[in-house]
Amino acid sequence: MAADFSHAYAVIMAGGGGTRLWPLSRKDKPKQLLPLIGQETLFQSTVARLKELFPPERILVVTVEEQVLEMKQQAPELPEENYLIEPAPRGTASVVGLAAMVLQKRDPQASMAILPSDHFIRNVDLFHYLLKAAFDVAADNYLVTLGITPTMPSTAYGYIQQGTPLKGEYKYPVYTVQSFREKPNEETAQQLLRMGGHSWNSGMFIWRADAIMGEIHRQMPALGKALNEIGTAWDSPNREEVLKKIWPGLKNETVDYGIMEKAEKVAVLPAGGLGWSDVGSWSSLFEVLLPDMNGNIATSASLHLALETNNTLIYGGSSDRLVVTIGVDDMVVVDTGDALLICKTDQSQKVKDVVEHLKKHRQEKYL
Amino acid sequence: MAADFSHAYAVIMAGGGGTRLWPLSRKDKPKQLLPLIGQETLFQSTVARLKELFPPERILVVTVEEQVLEMKQQAPELPEENYLIEPAPRGTASVVGLAAMVLQKRDPQASMAILPSDHFIRNVDLFHYLLKAAFDVAADNYLVTLGITPTMPSTAYGYIQQGTPLKGEYKYPVYTVQSFREKPNEETAQQLLRMGGHSWNSGMFIWRADAIMGEIHRQMPALGKALNEIGTAWDSPNREEVLKKIWPGLKNETVDYGIMEKAEKVAVLPAGGLGWSDVGSWSSLFEVLLPDMNGNIATSASLHLALETNNTLIYGGSSDRLVVTIGVDDMVVVDTGDALLICKTDQSQKVKDVVEHLKKHRQEKYL
Repeated sequence: MAADFSHAYAVIMAGGGGTRLWPLSRKDKPKQLLPLIGQETLFQSTVARLKELFPPERILVVTVEEQVLEMKQQAPELPEENYLIEPAPRGTASVVGLAAMVLQKRDPQASMAILPSDHFIRNVDLFHYLLKAAFDVAADNYLVTLGITPTMPSTAYGYIQQGTPLKGEYKYPVYTVQSFREKPNEETAQQLLRMGGHSWNSGMFIWRADAIMGEIHRQMPALGKALNEIGTAWDSPNREEVLKKIWPGLKNETVDYGIMEKAEKVAVLPAGGLGWSDVGSWSSLFEVLLPDMNGNIATSASLHLALETNNTLIYGGSSDRLVVTIGVDDMVVVDTGDALLICKTDQSQKVKDVVEHLKKHRQEKYL
Repeated sequence: MAADFSHAYAVIMAGGGGTRLWPLSRKDKPKQLLPLIGQETLFQSTVARLKELFPPERILVVTVEEQVLEMKQQAPELPEENYLIEPAPRGTASVVGLAAMVLQKRDPQASMAILPSDHFIRNVDLFHYLLKAAFDVAADNYLVTLGITPTMPSTAYGYIQQGTPLKGEYKYPVYTVQSFREKPNEETAQQLLRMGGHSWNSGMFIWRADAIMGEIHRQMPALGKALNEIGTAWDSPNREEVLKKIWPGLKNETVDYGIMEKAEKVAVLPAGGLGWSDVGSWSSLFEVLLPDMNGNIATSASLHLALETNNTLIYGGSSDRLVVTIGVDDMVVVDTGDALLICKTDQSQKVKDVVEHLKKHRQEKYL
């Protein structure tokens, strides 16, 4: 049924760290807080995208202490009380539960979209349309996941296999979920792409707060009980104290494994043509930024002079720095003040090995 | 006959500019003044190499006004009066003539080795041995050129075709010169290497001052006359004035074309095993620096972390800068404060095109 959009909320999950965009992303400057694409940070773009659909009062952010100040500066239009802080990372199940609990207190009829803070979406109008369609499905007590129609045999995402079309008058085709699959190997990914009927799990969910809370109590009773306790203290002076006491004891679990896989009413809305990217590696920038005739991307502050250079991304540098490439193909060059990365594009996932190496050798200043 | 080494002089030609090691070499910091290999600059290494054979009083430097101060700082052990300054670049024939004229005034029995300031020589003992052997040949009034036995079919050098062995009791095989050849194309270079009997023209010459002066007067009478005029004024207060008046009118000519090709008594001493390089491009550093097991050269001030990286040179950077390469093969990376060069090694000769481009677009600060 058509959702009453005045009870629809957006919850941005923004606490992540991530190492795959090193040396730009750092411990104290995670991906979502960086202007990776254009002038705005990914977090700012996410807020901007949602503000066209939700008033600021109905956009919440769940993050960690270390990032909240920077976020408030980047998105001052969101009310102070809409920033929720995880005392420690305990997986997306706990984050979702906290947000649902808070929303239920504010609005017993609340429904919510859970959205990552660090994704890119080119076609914002379509995104809005699909999100509204998903809220309609959620109004019928489904836990809806926004699947992304694969454009290549990626091994970087989990896959959702759709079942039968949902009955009902929806604005867009929606399906039951046949199964959730973990990240496949190359061969399986090829197969899933050929078979069709499989979407990437984007981590975007839409549901009624009471529906997800019901599943939490059914499938993760310990989390449910903890949320009850936190909820009781929420509007008292003990909020912080209770939260900090209970939170660290929670099981670290994702909402996918902890809830979605065995939930009773799950639906997938397979979204094609969104121009979506999780900006999960340097190579992904080739999908979201516009290359020149030679496939090069000049998103650099520096002056870039390219000779015999193709499909190469130059990122960073400073305005009085000249970057010259000669005979360079399929590379990513990232130049920060203290570090320089030169990486074959198809090996950009190895950047996380670099970060591991730096951790192991206690090169703190580069982390 | 055996040379009287107490009349042997070394003349370092050090006025060149050159663009092939950009962005390290710059207009005001040419190749010879840079510490390209180890701690010493190429000029300092050249002086050090010669000081083992010649006392400082018998080592002269011919350079240009713009470089002489820096050179005096880099080699303070050479007497002030041993630095000769070309008022303007007029080719090696003029430089050689100037040095020969000055030496004849100081020592009518002078013989001299003409040596570039910016070459690398790994086997210094052999170099000394060959230089002494060449002075013995020069004592018999030959104009001797030190040829380099080719180790690959290079198209970067002129070639010297040897003729018959010189008669005489010399310490090393020496030959008449059959012909001088300009830089060949790839095919010809292959052929010359297979044929044998051809050396690279290294620009190192050894001769008696009166022998070269005789040839100058015979083949380049205008230069001979000019040198006479300059010589007359040399020990008078008019030295500078006369030099600056006459020099700009000299014909710009190399000693190879102007004199060597048609000289009467020319000999070549083909030097093998010197470990010589003219350090004429970034790729040449792979010949003179010691790579690690993967063929990488870490001559960088920065910390270099290499994953799946082979045959790659990292040059420059600063001590608090981390350079990471992933999946990089056969590349040269040169990091200066204001510029970054990333170049496929076999295309490093294109660096001079970059400099041309910068000149054309008046990017003075990078030149």
